[in-house]
Amino acid sequence: MRWAIGVEYRGTRFAGWQRQPDCLSVQEHLEFAIEKIAGHPVQVYAAGRTDRGVHASMQVVHFDVNCERSDNAWVRGVNSFLTQDVAVLWSRAVPEEFHARFSAVKRHYRYFIYSHPVRPTLLANQVGWTHQSLKLDEMQRAASYMLGTHDFSAFRSSECQAKSPIKHLEEFSIELAAVQPSSGVLYEAKLTANAFLHHMVRNLIGAAVFVGAGNRPSIWMQELLQAKKREFAAPMFAADGLYLAGVLYPDEFLLPSWNETSRLAW
Amino acid sequence: MRWAIGVEYRGTRFAGWQRQPDCLSVQEHLEFAIEKIAGHPVQVYAAGRTDRGVHASMQVVHFDVNCERSDNAWVRGVNSFLTQDVAVLWSRAVPEEFHARFSAVKRHYRYFIYSHPVRPTLLANQVGWTHQSLKLDEMQRAASYMLGTHDFSAFRSSECQAKSPIKHLEEFSIELAAVQPSSGVLYEAKLTANAFLHHMVRNLIGAAVFVGAGNRPSIWMQELLQAKKREFAAPMFAADGLYLAGVLYPDEFLLPSWNETSRLAW
Repeated sequence: MRWAIGVEYRGTRFAGWQRQPDCLSVQEHLEFAIEKIAGHPVQVYAAGRTDRGVHASMQVVHFDVNCERSDNAWVRGVNSFLTQDVAVLWSRAVPEEFHARFSAVKRHYRYFIYSHPVRPTLLANQVGWTHQSLKLDEMQRAASYMLGTHDFSAFRSSECQAKSPIKHLEEFSIELAAVQPSSGVLYEAKLTANAFLHHMVRNLIGAAVFVGAGNRPSIWMQELLQAKKREFAAPMFAADGLYLAGVLYPDEFLLPSWNETSRLAW
Repeated sequence: MRWAIGVEYRGTRFAGWQRQPDCLSVQEHLEFAIEKIAGHPVQVYAAGRTDRGVHASMQVVHFDVNCERSDNAWVRGVNSFLTQDVAVLWSRAVPEEFHARFSAVKRHYRYFIYSHPVRPTLLANQVGWTHQSLKLDEMQRAASYMLGTHDFSAFRSSECQAKSPIKHLEEFSIELAAVQPSSGVLYEAKLTANAFLHHMVRNLIGAAVFVGAGNRPSIWMQELLQAKKREFAAPMFAADGLYLAGVLYPDEFLLPSWNETSRLAW
């Protein structure tokens, strides 16, 4: 029997989603807890294999078991075997043809950028920080050039294993999330695409912040995209501010929408 | 020469403000960094000696040095010797009669309560969590009974060293901070008093949540206050959601107001 679960995690103490020797991974941690409930070895598959330090407000995962358990066993039962950094939010029985990664049609990421002269402590590891002041309208214009179907090689890690660098980016908004007098500015970026290349969100944010800080005009980001070369780009932004925030599947699988089930980042 | 500084910290990894043998304290950490700039041993004094796990969005601290340094040395210089859990936000030269603790006329605390069936991961250590649903109007009514000058013995830790249990609580509000459909509710409590007893805020929040969850009517909290006995009270709430958020001094010291300089908790 195949199950899908919605998972939230704080990525700071993990070496990333994927199981690796001698490192703490979200995958290994989750498999340990699910096996306690299933009573046999289990392998889990995630929609997005997040990097070291990247968070998820809604990761989708599937696994197969040969036991009968209630929906609730995969939420409350599994949660009782997880540390405070990982929690299951919902579970659904799914047909055999469902695959968390290959059935996904869209991925949604959020990135929080914090601008203040002093690095954050209460928001440490949860936002990407810059001591520079940023021009929001310039960042928004730069982001708008990225929309549509493009070859995103300029924003791709050298270790990316995707077959094609061509992706369809349907959303890349940057808005003020919070502002207090002389206490800094928090920006929230939202990105949605059919799929993302390795480090693509962090590289896009790095370039947008480079523009926002006045290092380049916004049109430079379009030139970067067209040049298709990573070596011309701006420094990648930190993993700390990045959240996998939702995964969309065809309606037939009847999975909960990320809008209705994902929780506050803070 | 005496300096006052505004300090932000995440309390999770500290045994509390106060220096203790074999424990990591905010005090020891801060003295280490200030001594690097001062070039001689320094002792720091804080407005509020926060407990293990308690955060500060605005702690006020003073210390004496016998060297000439710019304002900025006590911000950027000290920050360069601190870990990511502590940061100095501002510094001001103050007269010899200023004392961070004894000159303070009001303390302001914030407490974040998170209600959701599943414990938080992204908000872990930053909010007090309950799996129960809470009635906001009942909590607000209970809180209103606490306003004014009272003997707060019912909300006092057995280890409290304050000379008198009588304090003047001028603010105890509880409001919705954020709500998303099926993703839980975040409440923010704000408390201001001339001074607080040991564990007073966490005990007041524990009692308000006990009422909000329907265990007692709101008037019970007034009876508790009048009984002046800790043993009748509700369980104390976690340190995780508690933030020292501001300290008020007489105008003559010309210190920055907490409204204008304290930063976002999240």
